[in-house]
Amino acid sequence: MARIVMKFGGTSVADVAHIRNVAKHIKREIDGGNQVAVILSAMSGTTNQLINWTSDASPMHDAREYDAIVASGEQVTIGLLSVILQSMGINARSWLGWQIPIKTSAVHGAARIEEINGAEIIRRMEEESQVAVIAGFQGIGPDERLTTLGRGGSDTTAVAIAAAINADICDIYTDVNGVYTTDPRIVPNAKKLARISYEEMLEMASLGAKVLLTRSVELAMIHKVRLAVRSSFEDPETARPTKDSDFSNLKNGINNHPGTMVCDEDEIMEQELVSGITYSKDEAKITLVNISDKPGISARIFIPLSEANINVDMIVQNVSEDGKYTNMTFTVPSDDLDKARSVIEQNNQNIGYEKILASTNIVKISVIGVGMRSHAGVAARMFETLAKKGINIIAITTSEIKVSVLIDAEYIELAVRALHTAYDLDVT
Amino acid sequence: MARIVMKFGGTSVADVAHIRNVAKHIKREIDGGNQVAVILSAMSGTTNQLINWTSDASPMHDAREYDAIVASGEQVTIGLLSVILQSMGINARSWLGWQIPIKTSAVHGAARIEEINGAEIIRRMEEESQVAVIAGFQGIGPDERLTTLGRGGSDTTAVAIAAAINADICDIYTDVNGVYTTDPRIVPNAKKLARISYEEMLEMASLGAKVLLTRSVELAMIHKVRLAVRSSFEDPETARPTKDSDFSNLKNGINNHPGTMVCDEDEIMEQELVSGITYSKDEAKITLVNISDKPGISARIFIPLSEANINVDMIVQNVSEDGKYTNMTFTVPSDDLDKARSVIEQNNQNIGYEKILASTNIVKISVIGVGMRSHAGVAARMFETLAKKGINIIAITTSEIKVSVLIDAEYIELAVRALHTAYDLDVT
Repeated sequence: MARIVMKFGGTSVADVAHIRNVAKHIKREIDGGNQVAVILSAMSGTTNQLINWTSDASPMHDAREYDAIVASGEQVTIGLLSVILQSMGINARSWLGWQIPIKTSAVHGAARIEEINGAEIIRRMEEESQVAVIAGFQGIGPDERLTTLGRGGSDTTAVAIAAAINADICDIYTDVNGVYTTDPRIVPNAKKLARISYEEMLEMASLGAKVLLTRSVELAMIHKVRLAVRSSFEDPETARPTKDSDFSNLKNGINNHPGTMVCDEDEIMEQELVSGITYSKDEAKITLVNISDKPGISARIFIPLSEANINVDMIVQNVSEDGKYTNMTFTVPSDDLDKARSVIEQNNQNIGYEKILASTNIVKISVIGVGMRSHAGVAARMFETLAKKGINIIAITTSEIKVSVLIDAEYIELAVRALHTAYDLDVT
Repeated sequence: MARIVMKFGGTSVADVAHIRNVAKHIKREIDGGNQVAVILSAMSGTTNQLINWTSDASPMHDAREYDAIVASGEQVTIGLLSVILQSMGINARSWLGWQIPIKTSAVHGAARIEEINGAEIIRRMEEESQVAVIAGFQGIGPDERLTTLGRGGSDTTAVAIAAAINADICDIYTDVNGVYTTDPRIVPNAKKLARISYEEMLEMASLGAKVLLTRSVELAMIHKVRLAVRSSFEDPETARPTKDSDFSNLKNGINNHPGTMVCDEDEIMEQELVSGITYSKDEAKITLVNISDKPGISARIFIPLSEANINVDMIVQNVSEDGKYTNMTFTVPSDDLDKARSVIEQNNQNIGYEKILASTNIVKISVIGVGMRSHAGVAARMFETLAKKGINIIAITTSEIKVSVLIDAEYIELAVRALHTAYDLDVT
């Protein structure tokens, strides 16, 4: 008997037929003897329609009313799934955020979960074999009004519930069957990872892999919740149900999970040197030409940007040739490019640059792996590989478990493929 | 300064443009210095769609889940209206049933309101000039789960809120501009009533007038809430706002309400002899031919019907010609005809009829007016008028304030027009 959380997104509950398919996935796990809590999103399209209506009502609107409006979507899907499960002879009930309650901060539209008491859900699982069907994305604020958790909120709910009920695993059902060593659209023989550590997944998510959001991975890491990505397109009836022994066997290197499990490093036996290659096109580059090469100049540039909530990622200061003037290049999220530019322009009296250049025609490529901690040479192999292909590196950042480089956008596929091969990640 | 409740149904909140129009009605009353609580239904079509999805999920379904699903509709409209009101500079907030809370019985799908504490809504009206925008049709049961009130639930919510906040009036905005002496589709010069008593309106509603439901009129009568029917198609900006003096002037015979006000008899100055003529096509007639004319035979027929929850309305027992056999005719709701027939057939051993005849080709015509209490001759004039037109009366029932007759369906328009003229109700 394992205790599992199963999360299904909007496309998996798009209509009654899809919800019936979700019910079959749940029946498989119940028949396998497991205790199940389910987290659902709204039907795909519903949340966007509700948001559009709200914007149409008024472009400026009370976030508390916005939350009340958009939280209605999950109310429908959890009710429908409960009805279908009951018709299959499975004891189930729907739970709205405020009924559990899922207590959140007061920041309407982007609330953080603060407290969940899982005792009643556990009691019903144990005493009544009841499946808890829980609305994702929503909670209740200190003002006793509905809140929503913002983008990716249902994944966050799933992880938080898994922590609250001490679940063995939190399965995120999605349209891909796992996390890959890189984007299979670029590298067709990319490899599906059986397991990946929280730290690596966090880097993957923040560096461009879209399958899980940073926020839910962070939460899983904090609470040591095993998180998994698996496909909602598997045949729900022939798939193998989760078993309790799946988890006790993890340390022996046996992994029966059909998708990718994100877990503690301790539970990963043979740690690869590099787990994945990611890319991000959402970067923009700004170069300030001919600024004076004197102490304090960096502060004059980056303090105003930070005050404007603009996240500067990579910074390169050229070596000054004459000891007087130099160029400074840095990257910001491309959505913030215009804002960053105007902040710099407003501060030019203080900074004193000759010219400002900007480009979004760049890409950040990252190599990620906890193995780097104990193995030297990972970065060197990256630079060497790119050099061999004639790809110029504009900037570099590193952390304990990743190396990122900024290159011209036109080299993106070439660079990803070369690195994937260089680190022996291709399926053979 | 008056305190008013304004209720708008599904067609009045069908989309954002319609909700904007509702907001203008509210702005008029706020600008007129009034305190306002608004009750909304879901967008027209939404509730039916939700019900259809639920039936599609499973024909047999948990009423608690059904309630959670269908209660989502009003959540959207109250949020959108609040956003629009705020954008017009009006302080407003949405209230879900459980937030007030509107406490109901545990009968999911057809719950009864048991308790509403209006104190917080009144406080916000008085201290913050805040408009309460309240979800109709829903509440919270003793199990802390969402309940819905069943058919006409939003009208019921409106009256209950009006009672809880001690409102001067509860305006039901609808697609007609008031209650008429009879159906204007049959009698084009039917007259709009300025005021009508609770008792009369109750009879009108239960005898076929569809503009208000019996349930909300009953509740208004119990709590002495002035209820009114008015048009949501009035120009919201040019209509006259309600004034406090409207209510103090009622006893002087001055009525500024643009629709029809349903109120206590005391507030109606010149009481008409007859207020209205209604008809109902929802009746069916059953005749048992040649039953024995002996004591106890009625009980043998009507006790089984009552045990089957079938409501028998009119009963006529023919005078026996030979002292041995007679015919018994009675009416039941046409929806219950098949059920009634099979109950009778199952009990024939006990009853002993020769033949059973059934017909839905009949109609019940009623004349309603509190004036009948003090004036004789109302029924006589009805029989005389119908006789003159050659219309045969199959059965009769009366109460203190109404006379109903059963006639063949083909005479419906003729009978209604003749009676409307006979009681001087035509607009001249």
